[in-house]
Amino acid sequence: MIRFAVIGAGRIGQVHARAVAGHPDAELALICDPFEENAKKLAEAYGVAYTLDVNDVYASDVDAVIIGSPTQMHVEQILGSVKAGKRVLCEKPVALDLDEARRCQEELGAEAERVMMGFNRRFDPTFADIHRRVADGEIGDLQQFTLFSRDPAAPPAQYVAGSGGVFRDMTIHDFDMVRHFLGDIVEVSAFGTNTIDAIKEAGDFDQAVVMLRSADGRVATVVNSRTCVYGYDQRMEAFGSEGALSADNLTATQVRKSTAKATEARPEILDFFLDRYVDAYRIELSAFIDAVKADGPVVPNVIDGVKALEIAEAATVSAQERRTVTL
Amino acid sequence: MIRFAVIGAGRIGQVHARAVAGHPDAELALICDPFEENAKKLAEAYGVAYTLDVNDVYASDVDAVIIGSPTQMHVEQILGSVKAGKRVLCEKPVALDLDEARRCQEELGAEAERVMMGFNRRFDPTFADIHRRVADGEIGDLQQFTLFSRDPAAPPAQYVAGSGGVFRDMTIHDFDMVRHFLGDIVEVSAFGTNTIDAIKEAGDFDQAVVMLRSADGRVATVVNSRTCVYGYDQRMEAFGSEGALSADNLTATQVRKSTAKATEARPEILDFFLDRYVDAYRIELSAFIDAVKADGPVVPNVIDGVKALEIAEAATVSAQERRTVTL
Amino acid sequence: MIRFAVIGAGRIGQVHARAVAGHPDAELALICDPFEENAKKLAEAYGVAYTLDVNDVYASDVDAVIIGSPTQMHVEQILGSVKAGKRVLCEKPVALDLDEARRCQEELGAEAERVMMGFNRRFDPTFADIHRRVADGEIGDLQQFTLFSRDPAAPPAQYVAGSGGVFRDMTIHDFDMVRHFLGDIVEVSAFGTNTIDAIKEAGDFDQAVVMLRSADGRVATVVNSRTCVYGYDQRMEAFGSEGALSADNLTATQVRKSTAKATEARPEILDFFLDRYVDAYRIELSAFIDAVKADGPVVPNVIDGVKALEIAEAATVSAQERRTVTL
Amino acid sequence: MIRFAVIGAGRIGQVHARAVAGHPDAELALICDPFEENAKKLAEAYGVAYTLDVNDVYASDVDAVIIGSPTQMHVEQILGSVKAGKRVLCEKPVALDLDEARRCQEELGAEAERVMMGFNRRFDPTFADIHRRVADGEIGDLQQFTLFSRDPAAPPAQYVAGSGGVFRDMTIHDFDMVRHFLGDIVEVSAFGTNTIDAIKEAGDFDQAVVMLRSADGRVATVVNSRTCVYGYDQRMEAFGSEGALSADNLTATQVRKSTAKATEARPEILDFFLDRYVDAYRIELSAFIDAVKADGPVVPNVIDGVKALEIAEAATVSAQERRTVTL
Repeated sequence: MIRFAVIGAGRIGQVHARAVAGHPDAELALICDPFEENAKKLAEAYGVAYTLDVNDVYASDVDAVIIGSPTQMHVEQILGSVKAGKRVLCEKPVALDLDEARRCQEELGAEAERVMMGFNRRFDPTFADIHRRVADGEIGDLQQFTLFSRDPAAPPAQYVAGSGGVFRDMTIHDFDMVRHFLGDIVEVSAFGTNTIDAIKEAGDFDQAVVMLRSADGRVATVVNSRTCVYGYDQRMEAFGSEGALSADNLTATQVRKSTAKATEARPEILDFFLDRYVDAYRIELSAFIDAVKADGPVVPNVIDGVKALEIAEAATVSAQERRTVTL
Repeated sequence: MIRFAVIGAGRIGQVHARAVAGHPDAELALICDPFEENAKKLAEAYGVAYTLDVNDVYASDVDAVIIGSPTQMHVEQILGSVKAGKRVLCEKPVALDLDEARRCQEELGAEAERVMMGFNRRFDPTFADIHRRVADGEIGDLQQFTLFSRDPAAPPAQYVAGSGGVFRDMTIHDFDMVRHFLGDIVEVSAFGTNTIDAIKEAGDFDQAVVMLRSADGRVATVVNSRTCVYGYDQRMEAFGSEGALSADNLTATQVRKSTAKATEARPEILDFFLDRYVDAYRIELSAFIDAVKADGPVVPNVIDGVKALEIAEAATVSAQERRTVTL
Repeated sequence: MIRFAVIGAGRIGQVHARAVAGHPDAELALICDPFEENAKKLAEAYGVAYTLDVNDVYASDVDAVIIGSPTQMHVEQILGSVKAGKRVLCEKPVALDLDEARRCQEELGAEAERVMMGFNRRFDPTFADIHRRVADGEIGDLQQFTLFSRDPAAPPAQYVAGSGGVFRDMTIHDFDMVRHFLGDIVEVSAFGTNTIDAIKEAGDFDQAVVMLRSADGRVATVVNSRTCVYGYDQRMEAFGSEGALSADNLTATQVRKSTAKATEARPEILDFFLDRYVDAYRIELSAFIDAVKADGPVVPNVIDGVKALEIAEAATVSAQERRTVTL
Repeated sequence: MIRFAVIGAGRIGQVHARAVAGHPDAELALICDPFEENAKKLAEAYGVAYTLDVNDVYASDVDAVIIGSPTQMHVEQILGSVKAGKRVLCEKPVALDLDEARRCQEELGAEAERVMMGFNRRFDPTFADIHRRVADGEIGDLQQFTLFSRDPAAPPAQYVAGSGGVFRDMTIHDFDMVRHFLGDIVEVSAFGTNTIDAIKEAGDFDQAVVMLRSADGRVATVVNSRTCVYGYDQRMEAFGSEGALSADNLTATQVRKSTAKATEARPEILDFFLDRYVDAYRIELSAFIDAVKADGPVVPNVIDGVKALEIAEAATVSAQERRTVTL
């Protein structure tokens, strides 16, 4: 039984707490959040202890720590937990600032491979199935990889201002997926656009398209939007020499409707990331627990987190300076 | 070059005239219709002769006659044309009355195999492809066969009154398809229902479901409706020991639409039988011309027409007397 | 907190035990099975007590009993539990013998409405969504209802011999769904066929098609097969005056594959009923718990169970005697 | 009746000759090709005159000329025909060399708007329907536009060597479509890759991805491949503030197949551009004939041809020099 502390009692912390509580090999032991109201509420929901001080987590007897705090806390809490001998699963990104993320990796040294980063999409059953089948050679050589990733609704301008920009905050999930499928990236070209004034005024883009070239010469394309009226649009297409594998969106039911105006319409797609990726979070936790049990490395880890951030940085420069960037 | 006369200048006659005019091996030579206005208009559209008297057709030098007149004329015109040495393609059904149809077959003798009946659906590219693949054993043994066949809008009550009832007028197409896939039928059970008062008052059903057992023990199911708000619903499913082949409806374009309410909606399906089966009519004509050139038998022919009518008769009795009928 | 006993530690008992253990308002307290090995294993998995004697269940302090024993035990255990003051959720069917089922309903009297029958498909999210939307008038008047229900693989001949036949054992689920959508049934016609010798020799059919007429004159069609090479085929189509709602099969992922031979192929469909209906069992339990909390009636109940069995009896007679049967 | 000459008796010339011969308002009068064998064969198929000398076309009494000769002849033949008072429909591109294309436009002056360029995809019923519905505001503001365009099989290396490169030869169709949907383009970034050695050795790419920014700030993405094992992959997605419209590939039939390995698989997609776009060529001709009858301008014309070529030139520079290019 692996004993867990969860740092951060907000939305993502709640997701992880529920996953831990429901896992047969995990035990939720401690909640940590500087806001007592949040910490207490989540702790009581599972009948566990809570603390406002992260040092109590380090000093506790938990085996593993899940970090779901604001991004600016990530590096300090990763390092603190690791120094205290805990295994860590940290939400993405490592940091907003690439230098800070690199410093984190450096200080971790060999431990960097043992700290998991929460790129949950790798564990989505549909995406994971495509990855496995591509790896098995089912479509021959993978040649082109295309991702559509659109959020249902834009975050508040205040969030955007502190997010590090669309590439570090949103596209970073896609950058990790591109690396997952194509390996390391050497060249990036990004176009950003705006359809929302408040986000433009905050100095960020709300739509983006990115082309990425891998070290072995293959190209991926990412299409992003902060808004999507028909829901949380999450699709991919892996195109290879012997065929293609693509991922449809998830809907709540399998109903189709035909009327005088349209036929075989599927229902609205799931529009909240926690519903869409509920299985992914669960499977991600299992992968982490397996690594803890085996006392071994884990993927994706801090090194992957840093590499995704390097791509995000390159994309940001490319979109702002309107030029292709070499990594 | 096969020279054609078309008897009947109504809607279906126009379809055939156009198909003949567009076929490289066919020449439209003569139009026949007792209503001069109709005959003249259609003849002028193709710059050919016309007559009001069917005897002129028999006396003419055409090689082949297409009969698209009202059903009560079919037997007389089939016999008249054949006696005059013409090859015949006649619209379904042979007759409304089964005895009359049988008499027609009897009088034709060996010629019955050379008179084609216009069961156009056998020639629809999608249905024909399923038939060929089933015959090739692609889904193992065919075990269950299901047809959905719904018209977009009910005919006028006046038409219904003279139609011989839904089974002879509408389901007869499905009965022919069931025979096409399963062979001869030995047992029929039919349920008729009404959603339209005018059709009920005319003594007919406007919806029907039929189960049919083939001589070799397999079962088919037909679901019919005189109305369908989303168009001309024409689907089938062939279920076998190694898989299933099914037919989707045809749409005018390949557009899909996603909105806040529904996703990936296909456009309305084609709702007019001439649009839906335009290819089928063209291919049917080619099959007929091939038989004429080869001076050989043709399928489906008058014998098939009589057998479909026998099933329609059995279904009518079954639905009215609420019992299973053995053929 | 509702305390539960589960009678029957076989496959379906395990499903219910897991659902109870995972429900926030339920507590699993006791397992009962005459085979100690089974009872003990399941009880230990959840750390609860077990007994070999069903009288211990009646005498216990549980609030509710889930009956997952062989069908011949159902009536006795329903009556025993109800007399002991327990609420009951019993797997279908009430009994193999219609008279026995009717006797059960009679003895229960007013309690019959409070004993839930496990027609889990009513609670499947896709089917339930169609039911609700039909009830909301989304497709106008419901006119035709079609069910495809095919099992992935036939049960052993030994099971078939004691199953009461395909209509009582398998189609009964569909009969309940037809009643759920169309209300009471007054007329049934069924065709049974065989593709499997062992089942034929056991005196049963392995494929069946059934037409059913409701009291208000609408018709449903059911297509059944004991085998289906592409999985557990569970679809429905509700056709109404303003449109149609249909249910696609569930697949494990949303992957589509295109190759030189076929395009946009979906993966194999879920082929085990516990996977396919995992949500349905969970939601069924919630509906039962809601009824227990409210101390009220529940649907579907023993009366629904008897009515489904009456239809199964009529279908059996219809298929054997090859005639339409009026209820 | 508009009288036509067709210059070029190769594959595309044959397509146009057939379309002209089948159009009710057009008359095929003259075929021109320097290879007598080709010219004679095509002319005889339609029973019309032929010539080896293009000057005979100019001197003839035809109203309109369709140019389907090799690209290097286009400018000379456009100018020659226009000077002779003929209306012209010329296959894309105007020229391989942008300067030559610009010179052509300059010499044409006001006539440039009256010379149609054969960007047939604008006339594909599915794509045209999406364009019309976007223009009608059906998906609100169009925000992102994505094109997948993959050929079934790569052309011979010899063809590639003289083609002007993938962007001028293949992607130019997509560039025209992007302009059709988004208007003029101001910024281009392109990544080219190779999977085929012979094409790499010829100095060209066989796969490409392009991002384009329109004058009003919207972004389009094009994904190209010279090979596609599952056929001629031609899809698009128009994403707007109120929804999305996308285009599926065309298949020869509507059959779906389910087996133990895959379910609901569609058949192979049409893999020859003349089959895929047969309707588009026919509708394109009608649009041209309408313009001739109205004695008015036509779209797309030489100006559109030059603009598409400007984008192709920019994409070529971008892919070779690995930088974003501003137009």
